Amino acid sequence: MSEPKAEARRLPHPTRLEIRLEGVLHALADPVRLQVVRELAARPDELACSFFELPVSKSTTTYHFRVLRESGVIRQTYHGTAKMNSLREDDLEALFPGLLGCVLTADARQGRHHPEG
Amino acid sequence: MSEPKAEARRLPHPTRLEIRLEGVLHALADPVRLQVVRELAARPDELACSFFELPVSKSTTTYHFRVLRESGVIRQTYHGTAKMNSLREDDLEALFPGLLGCVLTADARQGRHHPEG
Repeated sequence: MSEPKAEARRLPHPTRLEIRLEGVLHALADPVRLQVVRELAARPDELACSFFELPVSKSTTTYHFRVLRESGVIRQTYHGTAKMNSLREDDLEALFPGLLGCVLTADARQGRHHPEG
Repeated sequence: MSEPKAEARRLPHPTRLEIRLEGVLHALADPVRLQVVRELAARPDELACSFFELPVSKSTTTYHFRVLRESGVIRQTYHGTAKMNSLREDDLEALFPGLLGCVLTADARQGRHHPEG
Protein backbone atom coordinates (compact mmCIF):
# COMPACT_ATOMS: atom_id res chain seq x y z
CA MET A 1 0.00 0.00 0.00
CA SER A 2 1.42 3.38 -0.98
CA GLU A 3 1.91 6.21 1.53
CA PRO A 4 -1.11 8.52 1.91
CA LYS A 5 -0.53 11.87 0.19
CA ALA A 6 0.57 14.67 2.49
CA GLU A 7 -2.52 16.67 1.52
CA ALA A 8 -4.77 13.97 2.98
CA ARG A 9 -3.16 14.53 6.38
CA ARG A 10 -3.95 18.24 6.56
CA LEU A 11 -6.96 19.26 8.60
CA PRO A 12 -9.29 22.00 7.35
CA HIS A 13 -9.02 25.32 9.18
CA PRO A 14 -10.92 28.57 8.68
CA THR A 15 -8.86 31.45 7.34
CA ARG A 16 -8.55 34.48 9.59
CA LEU A 17 -11.34 36.23 7.69
CA GLU A 18 -13.64 33.24 8.10
CA ILE A 19 -13.37 33.21 11.90
CA ARG A 20 -16.64 34.36 13.50
CA LEU A 21 -17.05 35.76 17.00
CA GLU A 22 -20.05 33.55 17.74
CA GLY A 23 -18.05 30.48 16.81
CA VAL A 24 -15.16 31.49 19.04
CA LEU A 25 -17.49 32.25 21.96
CA HIS A 26 -19.30 28.95 21.46
CA ALA A 27 -15.98 27.13 21.42
CA LEU A 28 -14.87 28.83 24.65
CA ALA A 29 -18.26 28.32 26.33
CA ASP A 30 -17.53 24.70 27.18
CA PRO A 31 -15.46 23.98 30.34
CA VAL A 32 -13.56 21.10 28.71
CA ARG A 33 -12.65 23.21 25.70
CA LEU A 34 -11.73 26.11 27.93
CA GLN A 35 -9.40 23.78 29.84
CA VAL A 36 -7.66 22.90 26.56
CA VAL A 37 -7.32 26.59 25.70
CA ARG A 38 -6.06 27.42 29.19
CA GLU A 39 -3.36 24.76 28.98
CA LEU A 40 -2.30 25.79 25.48
CA ALA A 41 -2.09 29.43 26.58
CA ALA A 42 0.14 28.48 29.50
CA ARG A 43 2.82 26.86 27.36
CA PRO A 44 4.92 28.11 24.46
CA ASP A 45 4.94 24.80 22.56
CA GLU A 46 2.48 22.81 20.55
CA LEU A 47 0.81 20.10 22.59
CA ALA A 48 -0.36 16.71 21.41
CA CYS A 49 -4.00 15.76 21.99
CA SER A 50 -2.75 12.97 24.22
CA PHE A 51 -1.14 15.53 26.55
CA PHE A 52 -4.48 16.67 27.86
CA GLU A 53 -6.09 14.80 30.72
CA LEU A 54 -9.74 15.54 30.10
CA PRO A 55 -12.66 14.16 32.11
CA VAL A 56 -14.43 12.84 29.00
CA SER A 57 -14.20 9.93 26.55
CA LYS A 58 -11.73 9.81 23.67
CA SER A 59 -14.47 10.40 21.10
CA THR A 60 -15.79 13.38 23.05
CA THR A 61 -12.25 14.71 23.29
CA THR A 62 -11.88 14.42 19.52
CA TYR A 63 -15.15 16.28 19.10
CA HIS A 64 -14.03 19.09 21.38
CA PHE A 65 -10.76 19.52 19.49
CA ARG A 66 -12.65 19.64 16.22
CA VAL A 67 -14.92 22.41 17.56
CA LEU A 68 -11.84 24.36 18.63
CA ARG A 69 -10.22 23.89 15.22
CA GLU A 70 -13.29 24.64 13.12
CA SER A 71 -14.02 27.80 15.09
CA GLY A 72 -10.49 29.04 14.48
CA VAL A 73 -9.34 28.93 18.10
CA ILE A 74 -6.67 26.28 17.60
CA ARG A 75 -4.46 25.04 14.82
CA GLN A 76 -3.94 21.30 14.48
CA THR A 77 -1.14 19.75 12.47
CA TYR A 78 -0.10 16.16 12.06
CA HIS A 79 3.33 15.13 13.29
CA GLY A 80 3.32 11.51 12.20
CA THR A 81 0.15 10.06 13.67
CA ALA A 82 -0.14 12.61 16.49
CA LYS A 83 -2.15 15.80 16.13
CA MET A 84 -0.25 18.76 17.55
CA ASN A 85 -2.25 21.70 18.82
CA SER A 86 -1.53 25.40 19.20
CA LEU A 87 -3.62 28.48 19.89
CA ARG A 88 -4.23 30.83 16.99
CA GLU A 89 -3.37 33.74 19.24
CA ASP A 90 -2.23 36.04 16.43
CA ASP A 91 -5.46 35.57 14.50
CA LEU A 92 -7.69 35.93 17.55
CA GLU A 93 -5.84 39.00 18.79
CA ALA A 94 -6.05 40.63 15.37
CA LEU A 95 -9.79 39.99 15.11
CA PHE A 96 -10.88 40.30 18.74
CA PRO A 97 -8.28 42.21 20.74
CA GLY A 98 -8.05 41.17 24.34
CA LEU A 99 -10.87 38.64 24.13
CA LEU A 100 -8.81 35.53 24.81
CA GLY A 101 -7.01 37.15 27.73
CA CYS A 102 -10.27 38.43 29.15
CA VAL A 103 -11.91 35.01 29.00
CA LEU A 104 -8.90 33.27 30.55
CA THR A 105 -8.79 35.83 33.35
CA ALA A 106 -12.51 35.38 33.95
CA ASP A 107 -11.98 31.62 34.02
CA ALA A 108 -9.16 31.94 36.55
CA ARG A 109 -11.29 34.14 38.80
CA GLN A 110 -14.16 31.66 38.64
CA GLY A 111 -11.79 28.83 39.48
CA ARG A 112 -10.87 30.62 42.70
CA HIS A 113 -14.53 31.03 43.70
CA HIS A 114 -15.84 27.72 42.40
CA PRO A 115 -13.09 25.18 42.98
CA GLU A 116 -15.24 22.38 41.59
CA GLY A 117 -14.39 23.83 38.18
CA MET B 1 -60.98 35.95 39.78
CA SER B 2 -58.49 37.42 42.26
CA GLU B 3 -55.30 39.22 41.16
CA PRO B 4 -52.26 36.94 40.78
CA LYS B 5 -49.87 37.37 43.71
CA ALA B 6 -46.89 39.63 43.03
CA GLU B 7 -44.55 36.71 43.73
CA ALA B 8 -46.01 34.77 40.78
CA ARG B 9 -44.95 37.61 38.45
CA ARG B 10 -41.27 37.47 39.42
CA LEU B 11 -38.93 35.62 37.10
CA PRO B 12 -36.17 33.44 38.52
CA HIS B 13 -32.66 34.86 38.22
CA PRO B 14 -29.31 33.41 39.30
CA THR B 15 -27.60 35.23 42.17
CA ARG B 16 -24.24 36.79 41.38
CA LEU B 17 -22.45 33.78 42.88
CA GLU B 18 -24.47 31.39 40.74
CA ILE B 19 -23.45 33.03 37.46
CA ARG B 20 -21.05 30.80 35.51
CA LEU B 21 -18.63 31.93 32.82
CA GLU B 22 -19.62 29.12 30.46
CA GLY B 23 -23.26 30.16 30.74
CA VAL B 24 -22.44 33.78 30.00
CA LEU B 25 -20.26 32.84 27.03
CA HIS B 26 -22.95 30.49 25.71
CA ALA B 27 -25.51 33.27 26.04
CA LEU B 28 -23.29 35.72 24.17
CA ALA B 29 -22.36 33.16 21.49
CA ASP B 30 -25.63 33.61 19.63
CA PRO B 31 -25.91 36.58 17.19
CA VAL B 32 -29.54 37.30 18.11
CA ARG B 33 -28.75 37.33 21.83
CA LEU B 34 -25.66 39.42 21.20
CA GLN B 35 -27.84 41.91 19.35
CA VAL B 36 -30.08 42.18 22.41
CA VAL B 37 -27.05 42.72 24.65
CA ARG B 38 -25.59 45.29 22.25
CA GLU B 39 -28.82 47.30 22.24
CA LEU B 40 -29.20 47.13 26.02
CA ALA B 41 -25.60 48.26 26.47
CA ALA B 42 -26.19 51.24 24.20
CA ARG B 43 -29.03 52.69 26.27
CA PRO B 44 -29.30 53.72 29.90
CA ASP B 45 -32.90 52.53 30.37
CA GLU B 46 -34.65 49.23 30.67
CA LEU B 47 -36.09 48.06 27.38
CA ALA B 48 -39.24 46.03 26.82
CA CYS B 49 -38.96 42.77 24.89
CA SER B 50 -41.20 44.35 22.24
CA PHE B 51 -38.60 47.07 21.63
CA PHE B 52 -36.26 44.67 19.91
CA GLU B 53 -36.71 43.96 16.22
CA LEU B 54 -35.23 40.50 15.97
CA PRO B 55 -35.14 38.36 12.82
CA VAL B 56 -36.79 35.39 14.55
CA SER B 57 -40.25 34.26 15.70
CA LYS B 58 -41.85 35.44 18.92
CA SER B 59 -41.36 32.07 20.59
CA THR B 60 -37.70 32.02 19.59
CA THR B 61 -37.33 35.55 20.91
CA THR B 62 -38.82 34.46 24.24
CA TYR B 63 -36.38 31.57 24.33
CA HIS B 64 -33.41 33.86 23.70
CA PHE B 65 -34.46 36.23 26.48
CA ARG B 66 -34.81 33.29 28.84
CA VAL B 67 -31.28 32.10 28.02
CA LEU B 68 -29.98 35.62 28.71
CA ARG B 69 -31.85 35.79 32.02
CA GLU B 70 -30.97 32.31 33.24
CA SER B 71 -27.29 32.82 32.46
CA GLY B 72 -27.26 36.02 34.49
CA VAL B 73 -26.60 38.40 31.61
CA ILE B 74 -29.90 40.28 31.86
CA ARG B 75 -32.46 41.09 34.49
CA GLN B 76 -36.11 40.88 33.56
CA THR B 77 -38.88 42.47 35.59
CA TYR B 78 -42.58 42.75 34.92
CA HIS B 79 -44.07 46.19 34.47
CA GLY B 80 -47.71 45.24 34.08
CA THR B 81 -47.76 42.66 31.31
CA ALA B 82 -44.51 43.82 29.68
CA LYS B 83 -41.15 42.32 30.60
CA MET B 84 -38.52 45.03 31.01
CA ASN B 85 -34.90 44.08 30.38
CA SER B 86 -31.61 45.44 31.63
CA LEU B 87 -28.02 44.23 31.54
CA ARG B 88 -26.56 42.95 34.80
CA GLU B 89 -23.46 45.00 34.17
CA ASP B 90 -22.49 45.34 37.81
CA ASP B 91 -22.62 41.60 38.39
CA LEU B 92 -20.80 40.74 35.17
CA GLU B 93 -18.10 43.36 35.76
CA ALA B 94 -17.56 42.14 39.32
CA LEU B 95 -17.24 38.51 38.21
CA PHE B 96 -15.59 38.88 34.81
CA PRO B 97 -13.93 42.30 34.53
CA GLY B 98 -13.88 43.69 31.02
CA LEU B 99 -15.52 40.66 29.45
CA LEU B 100 -18.71 42.33 28.30
CA GLY B 101 -16.84 45.31 26.86
CA CYS B 102 -14.39 43.03 25.12
CA VAL B 103 -17.12 40.97 23.51
CA LEU B 104 -19.06 44.04 22.37
CA THR B 105 -15.91 45.56 20.90
CA ALA B 106 -15.17 42.30 19.10
CA ASP B 107 -18.73 42.26 17.80
CA ALA B 108 -18.45 45.82 16.53
CA ARG B 109 -15.19 45.03 14.73
CA GLN B 110 -16.74 41.97 13.11
CA GLY B 111 -19.73 44.04 12.04
CA ARG B 112 -17.39 46.35 10.14
CA HIS B 113 -15.72 43.46 8.31
CA HIS B 114 -18.78 41.28 7.83
CA PRO B 115 -21.68 43.64 7.20
CA GLU B 116 -24.07 40.72 6.73
CA GLY B 117 -23.98 40.40 10.51
